[in-house]
Amino acid sequence: MVCGDMNAARTVPASSPGHIALVGAGPGDPELLTVRAARLIAEADVVVHDALVGAGVLALVRPDAELIDVGKRPGAGVAQELTNTLLVRLATEGKRIVRLKGGDPFVFGRGGEEAVVLAAAGFACEVVPGITSAVAAPAAAGIPVTYRGLAASFTVVTGHRQFGELPVNWTALAQSGGTIVILMGVAERGVIADALMAGGLAAHTPVAAIRRATTDQQLVERCRLDQLAALAVESPATLVVGAVAALNVMDVGSAAAYAVDPC
Amino acid sequence: MVCGDMNAARTVPASSPGHIALVGAGPGDPELLTVRAARLIAEADVVVHDALVGAGVLALVRPDAELIDVGKRPGAGVAQELTNTLLVRLATEGKRIVRLKGGDPFVFGRGGEEAVVLAAAGFACEVVPGITSAVAAPAAAGIPVTYRGLAASFTVVTGHRQFGELPVNWTALAQSGGTIVILMGVAERGVIADALMAGGLAAHTPVAAIRRATTDQQLVERCRLDQLAALAVESPATLVVGAVAALNVMDVGSAAAYAVDPC
Repeated sequence: MVCGDMNAARTVPASSPGHIALVGAGPGDPELLTVRAARLIAEADVVVHDALVGAGVLALVRPDAELIDVGKRPGAGVAQELTNTLLVRLATEGKRIVRLKGGDPFVFGRGGEEAVVLAAAGFACEVVPGITSAVAAPAAAGIPVTYRGLAASFTVVTGHRQFGELPVNWTALAQSGGTIVILMGVAERGVIADALMAGGLAAHTPVAAIRRATTDQQLVERCRLDQLAALAVESPATLVVGAVAALNVMDVGSAAAYAVDPC
Repeated sequence: MVCGDMNAARTVPASSPGHIALVGAGPGDPELLTVRAARLIAEADVVVHDALVGAGVLALVRPDAELIDVGKRPGAGVAQELTNTLLVRLATEGKRIVRLKGGDPFVFGRGGEEAVVLAAAGFACEVVPGITSAVAAPAAAGIPVTYRGLAASFTVVTGHRQFGELPVNWTALAQSGGTIVILMGVAERGVIADALMAGGLAAHTPVAAIRRATTDQQLVERCRLDQLAALAVESPATLVVGAVAALNVMDVGSAAAYAVDPC
C-alpha cells in the first residue's frame, strides 16, 4: 500500500516552490497535453525538455522562464548523467521545475530513472502521464491498437538496441497474436521485420508507419511486413504491425468494407 | 497516405453542429483529461458515456447538455448495438456529440467499432486519445511500465474473455521478457497467473494491483505471481506483472535501494 505517498504528491499546489514534476508532453499537438501538464508548464520557473517535444508545446512556457534543452547533446550516456545532475541541482534551488518528455515519461522516456535519482537525493517528484504516441499515432491514422476479432492485446517495444541492453524476444511478440507497436525502430526496420517473420508472422501482415503524428505534417505510409525494409520512411516514426494496421476506421470511404458485427 | 482526412477532421471547430468525437476520459482524475477533451466535453450538446467515466469528469458537462449513460445496461451485446444506433441517430440530428470512454477510446473501448459504424453511416468522427490506465495506473503507484535493464517492452492485454473471442497466447506473453499489464483481469486473475507461470514466468515475479488509480481513493497492493489468485482485490483494477511491479520510483524512502547506473 503506497497510495498515501502518491496522493499526497498530487495535493502539492503547482505554484509551490521546490515542486518538481516529470510531465508527458504527448504526441505533438499541444491540445493533447493534459490539463494538469498545461498548467504546470505555464507556471514553471524552469522547463527541462527533450528534443522530441514540439514547438507548439514549448510555446506555452512563460517568456521569463528558463528553457533548457537536454535532448540534443552527443553521447546519450553522458547526457543522461548531466540531466540527472541538473535536475537534482534545480530541485535543491527550490524552483518550480517541469521535466518535459515527449509522449509519456514512463514509456521509454527514462523518466523512471530520473525519478529514482531525485528520490535518492530526497526529492519526491510528481509524475504527470502523457498521451503516448504508441497509441495516439496509430489512432490519428485511424488505427485502433485493439479491435474486437482482430487484436486482443498490443505490445509496445523499442527498436533501439541500447535500451537497457535487454534483448527483445521478437519470436514471442510475433506469436502473441496482438498488435505490435515499435517506437524508435525505423533504422532497424529490416532486421525487425525479418525477426518477426522468422518468429511466425506472415509476410503479408499489414504494417503502418506514422510520422509527425497529430501535427499538420502528419504522414501515414502502409505496406506489408515483407516490404517494410524497403519502405521510404524517416526517423522518428511509429510503426504498427498487425491486422489493425490495415484499418482506417474514421474514413467514410473505406469503413463500409469492414465487417461490423452488431453484438 | 491518409493524413489528409485525419488532419481535416482536426480542423473542424468543436462548436460546429454535427460534430461527433470519440473522446478518452483518462484514468479518473479530471486534470488528466486532455485540453481538447475538456473543451469538447464543456461544449457538447450530448455526452454519451460509459460506466467507468468518473464523476469528476462528468461534472464538466454543461448543465443543459444531455447526459446519456450507456454503460450500465445488462447484456453487453444488446447494449453495444443500441449504442451504435443511438450514436448514428444523434449524428443525424446535427448535434455536438461527445462519446466519452474511460481511458483511451481505442484501448479495449470498442471505439474502433463505433467509428466504423459512424463512418459507414456517412459521419466522420474525430478521435481524441485519452490517458490509458494501462500506463497511468502503474505510474500513479510509482511503477514505470518500461525501465532500462528491467523491461524493454510492455504488453497491454484484457483478461476479459469475451473481447473478440480471440484466445490470448499467455505463453508468448510470459516469454516476451517485458511488462504485462492486464485490464479487466481481476475475475480471472488465478487462471491468468497459472497460465503465465506455465508459460515460464517465475512464481516470485512481482505483481501490483492498482484500484481507482489517480483518484483520492487509490489503492495499491503488491504480491508475487503465485499469490495473485489469493490477493484480495476488487474489480476493476489494473494488474501489472513483471520486475517493474516491485518499484516505487517516486518514493524517497525506497529509491536509494534501486541500482542507478549513471549512463
